[in-house]
Amino acid sequence: MIEIAPLSVYLVIGRDDCVLSPIEVVKQALEAGVKTVQLREKKGNMKEIIEFGREIRQLTKEYNAQFFVNDRLDLAQILEADGIHIGQDDLPIEEIKKITSPTFKIGISARTVEEAIEAEKAGADYLGVGAIYSTATKQDAKTIGLEGLDSIRQNVYIPIIAIGGIQKEHIPDLVRSGADGIAVVSAITRSANPFLSAKELIEEWRRTKEGYRFK
Amino acid sequence: MIEIAPLSVYLVIGRDDCVLSPIEVVKQALEAGVKTVQLREKKGNMKEIIEFGREIRQLTKEYNAQFFVNDRLDLAQILEADGIHIGQDDLPIEEIKKITSPTFKIGISARTVEEAIEAEKAGADYLGVGAIYSTATKQDAKTIGLEGLDSIRQNVYIPIIAIGGIQKEHIPDLVRSGADGIAVVSAITRSANPFLSAKELIEEWRRTKEGYRFK
Ligand code: NI
Repeated sequence: MIEIAPLSVYLVIGRDDCVLSPIEVVKQALEAGVKTVQLREKKGNMKEIIEFGREIRQLTKEYNAQFFVNDRLDLAQILEADGIHIGQDDLPIEEIKKITSPTFKIGISARTVEEAIEAEKAGADYLGVGAIYSTATKQDAKTIGLEGLDSIRQNVYIPIIAIGGIQKEHIPDLVRSGADGIAVVSAITRSANPFLSAKELIEEWRRTKEGYRFK
Repeated sequence: MIEIAPLSVYLVIGRDDCVLSPIEVVKQALEAGVKTVQLREKKGNMKEIIEFGREIRQLTKEYNAQFFVNDRLDLAQILEADGIHIGQDDLPIEEIKKITSPTFKIGISARTVEEAIEAEKAGADYLGVGAIYSTATKQDAKTIGLEGLDSIRQNVYIPIIAIGGIQKEHIPDLVRSGADGIAVVSAITRSANPFLSAKELIEEWRRTKEGYRFK
């Protein structure tokens, strides 16, 4: 297994996103070396979501990986997640901090420099920045491109995870524009071979970062 | 102000349901004697929902009324609500009980005798039973009628709050079929005079219950 920084290749997953069995996708991604998994379920039966989430919690522990929950703090607490990922319309970070422990991590989606600066000031642990490219899983997301990523990078210090339509080929550009990691949905969940797809992303990430190191 | 049992006339409110300003509707309902208010917001900006919820929390305290939040336990905790109301697809009561205090109240929606018995066994504080009549606010809800209400009443002991298309005129039938209270949305929120509408519901409720007492 290749070791990389925990946020480098960040899997976002909902059961509907998957070609194979969802938990099989998680397992293969972790086996390939993914160190962060986010559960993102927008609707559905909570009992079933909790069941799926418990399996992810168990697996991420076994693989020494982080587990985040999207949007729902109650779900994150029930699942004993390491953190939550919130969008601009979700629970405000100030409210989350009031009722969680200081070690509970909070990631925030940011599309603009203003949102990014505000999130950093409020104490976000990382930013999810995008959509960089257009994507099938979130067709309504407006893209900000590498320029958007770069201008946010100029203004904040916390880790930036690029998201939105990211494929292996984009990694050099994204690293050059200041990304500390990539969040992917379909590149892994819609792959017929999630293990291989995750491994290729991780290897490309490591190769790119090493290239930078030796420059 | 007329005093009635806390769950007798139960206001369910979301900002979109209202003709007047939402907080004005809450205030008038409380002024008329409503003793339970549930915040039900299905989507929207959480910062704004929290703002509205804080105002309801403040007002319900002033009027010595209960405050419930629909579906989201995280929101209920942030707002320091007295309890949560959950549907069959929401967080399971067992999970909620694990992370809340013993005094935190839990209401559960039930459409069938089976759901009602299960909710009672799991420790629900009350049942929301319906839809009794068809309604504009939840057009997809299947109605169970007075027969459905009656058959649930035969099988559980905890308070039953009837919901779904309820108007003042229905109160005698509902009491006769075993309801301990009525939950209303539009009868108050879509009224041009929420105070008067709430007052009429409460008076009709009291009159009906007194009629029973003297039989
Ligand atoms: Ni939701």
